Amino acid sequence: MSRGGPSGALAPAAGRAERLRERLAEAGLEGLLVTHGPNVRYLSGFTGSSGLLLLREEAGWLLTDSRYEEQAAEECGPGIEVHVTRNGLWSSLGELGRNWAGEPRVGFEAEHLTVRERARLEEELPGVAWEGTQGLVEALRAVKEPAEIERIARAGELACAALSDTLPVIREGMTELEIAAELEYRLRRAGSEGPAFDSIVAVGPRSALPHARPSDRALRSGDLLLVDFGGVVEGYRSDITRTFVAGPAAGWQTEIHDVVREAHDLAVAAVASGVPGRAVDAAARDRIRGAGYGERFGHSTGHGLGLEVHEAPAISHRADRVLQAGNVVTIEPGVYLPGRGGVRLEDDVAVESAQARVLTSLPLALREL
Amino acid sequence: MSRGGPSGALAPAAGRAERLRERLAEAGLEGLLVTHGPNVRYLSGFTGSSGLLLLREEAGWLLTDSRYEEQAAEECGPGIEVHVTRNGLWSSLGELGRNWAGEPRVGFEAEHLTVRERARLEEELPGVAWEGTQGLVEALRAVKEPAEIERIARAGELACAALSDTLPVIREGMTELEIAAELEYRLRRAGSEGPAFDSIVAVGPRSALPHARPSDRALRSGDLLLVDFGGVVEGYRSDITRTFVAGPAAGWQTEIHDVVREAHDLAVAAVASGVPGRAVDAAARDRIRGAGYGERFGHSTGHGLGLEVHEAPAISHRADRVLQAGNVVTIEPGVYLPGRGGVRLEDDVAVESAQARVLTSLPLALREL
Repeated sequence: MSRGGPSGALAPAAGRAERLRERLAEAGLEGLLVTHGPNVRYLSGFTGSSGLLLLREEAGWLLTDSRYEEQAAEECGPGIEVHVTRNGLWSSLGELGRNWAGEPRVGFEAEHLTVRERARLEEELPGVAWEGTQGLVEALRAVKEPAEIERIARAGELACAALSDTLPVIREGMTELEIAAELEYRLRRAGSEGPAFDSIVAVGPRSALPHARPSDRALRSGDLLLVDFGGVVEGYRSDITRTFVAGPAAGWQTEIHDVVREAHDLAVAAVASGVPGRAVDAAARDRIRGAGYGERFGHSTGHGLGLEVHEAPAISHRADRVLQAGNVVTIEPGVYLPGRGGVRLEDDVAVESAQARVLTSLPLALREL
Repeated sequence: MSRGGPSGALAPAAGRAERLRERLAEAGLEGLLVTHGPNVRYLSGFTGSSGLLLLREEAGWLLTDSRYEEQAAEECGPGIEVHVTRNGLWSSLGELGRNWAGEPRVGFEAEHLTVRERARLEEELPGVAWEGTQGLVEALRAVKEPAEIERIARAGELACAALSDTLPVIREGMTELEIAAELEYRLRRAGSEGPAFDSIVAVGPRSALPHARPSDRALRSGDLLLVDFGGVVEGYRSDITRTFVAGPAAGWQTEIHDVVREAHDLAVAAVASGVPGRAVDAAARDRIRGAGYGERFGHSTGHGLGLEVHEAPAISHRADRVLQAGNVVTIEPGVYLPGRGGVRLEDDVAVESAQARVLTSLPLALREL
């Protein structure tokens, strides 16, 4: 039950807002309306579900409703003024900007703002030249500070501890839902703020469904058992997958597990600053193809993670961008045989100057339960 | 560990799609692109996280990626053709519509489609006259079939059972996070697919924050303990709140609990087909105001729930629309005293022909733990 937190403090949100302002200036923008929750959190510290953040050159405003009044005042760092709205966030935004001079060019997040919200902007602040932007805050978030990486690492430790503690209680006859209950209980008890996403627990042929949700299906002798889940520490997530077998492993199970493990190790070894995401993807994919299972690995080798469980950078066959120090990505190749079962092995990896640092530390060998 | 499910089968998605087509015809639309996950699920049966549903007069298409190939084939009812995309959902949508004749008027969900996705529509299918729509599917979802109400009721039973089972293990010195772990474990073991939303467990002064997240704060003698959470059955959610006290209740705690309980009972009694949402809100709010706590009740009295934890209809001071049979709403008045503590009491209520049927059944009295 130890809940000793990561040691370093997170960078003040104000410093992040300054880096964003440099990007905005390069894009010729005088401000940015931030509506995506994880981006609002990253730039202001505010963790509530209802908030708009408007950053301009001289100041930042967080708009929220009365439910979050105390919380916003506590969480927002210096440089952010909190406004509690009584008539809805969008009307209050209109009031805030009513006296702006000229026709300022202000960005909005085109990947997050809905078409309806875009119309509200026009209604409330017709004097602003609104411009859609993409990935501005996400690009900053992709390069983590050491204190952010420590939080992901800690979330990884909690997940590893929870899975280790759960294995001894797994018995044949338990359902996927029961195994998920035992796992998430231990994850919470270890100190996670909750599951990082909907946990995947899939037995037998269901392990061949890459995104299976826990069901009433019970674990039977000879089944593969795939577990994919993560922990959360101060909003930062981990994401880990291991595959086990109930009883002695059959030949085909050992074979695909060996292939996936080699693909996993090759991809982890390929992770380094300056390497394009697609090269890491190819390291895993080529090995799986070489073993004749290319058609049985339909998803990307990995993805960035942090405040969200899927974020930049991508690790796929289309990812041209090179990795850089501070990125944190998953490596998660798999082989799925329809009707029989699948194996996936996933770890979280931080890109450091030259190589990779693996943040999750459970054994990879095929364990027989 | 009984997992006996609700008895009635859900209506086939095809019937729902037919009702939607009637609405589309009234709006002069030849089809609708459905992108909001719960709406996709409601109309097609598909529960995966990556899916676009296009309904036209003659047919329906579900587009998803290879991770969901088997699942989509299993879940989608008749009348829905599944397309597994290899190059992204939006490109596949473009291929699907490339041969459409004329310039069909097709709706999209303006409250859910992002500005970036709207631009993709234009790029991929420039020959379509796209029209933003609001709340078309949500209006259908607000009127539940009996089998849907049974699922919400079952999710309510699971939540009540989990909370009853958790109370005996709560001790002074336990943190909010530990109490949440015990509660969610029992919820899962009772058969819930997971928590319906991020559970709120708030002790002492933190119970005055309507949306507190569980923290390291430990329960101390004299603290109020507020628990707000829910279960999930086949995607349908419940949402229940009770407030307890550690040890003997102080006078002010009994006083605000009595006021909130009366407000709760008055609002439940006001729920009936033909009554506007604001009248139900007023029933609770007037009682709280009359007791002098009007300023301490800053949120709405309730909201609809179903596949989402917040959906139509609204129960607020602005809700002019009248309730109708088949609506399911929460009733959840509260009084929050900053720095001291708060009380909220919440139940889920189905609107039947004349009156309300309460779906959650835990005692409301202030229990001393």
